[in-house]
Amino acid sequence: MCELLGMSASVPTDISFSFSGLIRRGGETGPHKDGWGIAFYDGKGCRTFHDPVASAESPLATFIADYAIKSEIVISHIRRANRGRVALENTHPFIREMWGRYWCFAHNGQLSGVKTLPLSAYRPVGTTDSEHAFCWMLSQLRARWDKMPTDRQLHAAIAEMAASLSRHGVFNMLLSDSRSLFCHRGTHLVWITRRAPFRAATLLDEDVTVDFAKHTSPSDVVTIVATRPLTGDETWSPLPKGALVAFRDGQMHER
Amino acid sequence: MCELLGMSASVPTDISFSFSGLIRRGGETGPHKDGWGIAFYDGKGCRTFHDPVASAESPLATFIADYAIKSEIVISHIRRANRGRVALENTHPFIREMWGRYWCFAHNGQLSGVKTLPLSAYRPVGTTDSEHAFCWMLSQLRARWDKMPTDRQLHAAIAEMAASLSRHGVFNMLLSDSRSLFCHRGTHLVWITRRAPFRAATLLDEDVTVDFAKHTSPSDVVTIVATRPLTGDETWSPLPKGALVAFRDGQMHER
Repeated sequence: MCELLGMSASVPTDISFSFSGLIRRGGETGPHKDGWGIAFYDGKGCRTFHDPVASAESPLATFIADYAIKSEIVISHIRRANRGRVALENTHPFIREMWGRYWCFAHNGQLSGVKTLPLSAYRPVGTTDSEHAFCWMLSQLRARWDKMPTDRQLHAAIAEMAASLSRHGVFNMLLSDSRSLFCHRGTHLVWITRRAPFRAATLLDEDVTVDFAKHTSPSDVVTIVATRPLTGDETWSPLPKGALVAFRDGQMHER
Repeated sequence: MCELLGMSASVPTDISFSFSGLIRRGGETGPHKDGWGIAFYDGKGCRTFHDPVASAESPLATFIADYAIKSEIVISHIRRANRGRVALENTHPFIREMWGRYWCFAHNGQLSGVKTLPLSAYRPVGTTDSEHAFCWMLSQLRARWDKMPTDRQLHAAIAEMAASLSRHGVFNMLLSDSRSLFCHRGTHLVWITRRAPFRAATLLDEDVTVDFAKHTSPSDVVTIVATRPLTGDETWSPLPKGALVAFRDGQMHER
């Protein structure tokens, strides 16, 4: 299995605090030591960082945690390999361009028989079931629409495909098109929205406390999604099981 | 204008020495201060690092120069913006998946009227003429072949498109499909192949000397391609003008 971390924020926000906690679970407080990756959107741009080594021992992970890249949408993943060997090409998140936007995807779970799903416009480079599922979703979307459909159409199509993939096994997913953070909880995915009045919070995996009031403006809204809670003194809620939830600008996005 | 740096090597090799010299030209010994990027192939995997700031002042660039990622193929670019604003999405190298492989592209020069070239399977996310040219090339290749053609067919098709793009202006290009490093010199592109007996070399942009004999095995072959020579005590040769040259495993690849 693996662990996921996602963020949707109303203003460019750095995810250093949450990411610092997550990377401890990659070989130190957790067994997810087979690589890690993180994607930061900056408007339409997206930059990813991947390292096929344990995040708790990766100098690059420590550097990124300190570099404090500000972003409106972040997707991160620490991997414990089950399908597909430990290799750079099997390290999430995966990224593709569709309709002139970067799409980014990370998955937790195992999907049986997913590699029989047909592909057209997008093909995997590595050998994971996850990347195949991502390429199948994009191939389906691209075959259906030559340009970005409406929010409602897009949400419905992704929800339908996520439900379909869930029938192959465990499908916890984070996906973004540079505007929305789409989340699907198969088994494990919790979330929290931080907004004024901001308080302090302490990581579960590291003895670090941050007072968000010192790092935010009163109008900021920041939602964090993760496989398991990252802090012990805040209330994380499970996402609705089997439903697709989209966050935009830090808030749950009503279609 | 911008500067390019590429590497093709017979064994995973770190490009720290050359990259350290290049990044000085991004705001210190050269004016290319509008962002930088680098892509490292590791087998079929490819990871890229982008920062839309001057490389000479980028802590990420310094980190990457020290991190000594070993790779068989590297493409790097420092940018001086002329078409397209300074933004993450306009920072080279650009990357796309085609035929189950990652394709990576960086360009130096300006291309007039290139945005009228038709696109199909691939579309730009940013606003540079470079990314449009890349998406046009991939769209053409993808429309022609549904899977990887022969080396000879691929080389001929890319050569033809590079010649066509050159008619729009200055087209110095580095491109890779994870196997070959394709180079097209419009105006400026020099190369050097290092092989046994290895010697020492000194950077032009920084007072750094490396003795390659200490960092290599006798069978290693490493080719470096750059806009301008990076060292002052080696003989760099211009690539043939207007021709497409491919390097594989460090050596010029005869089709």
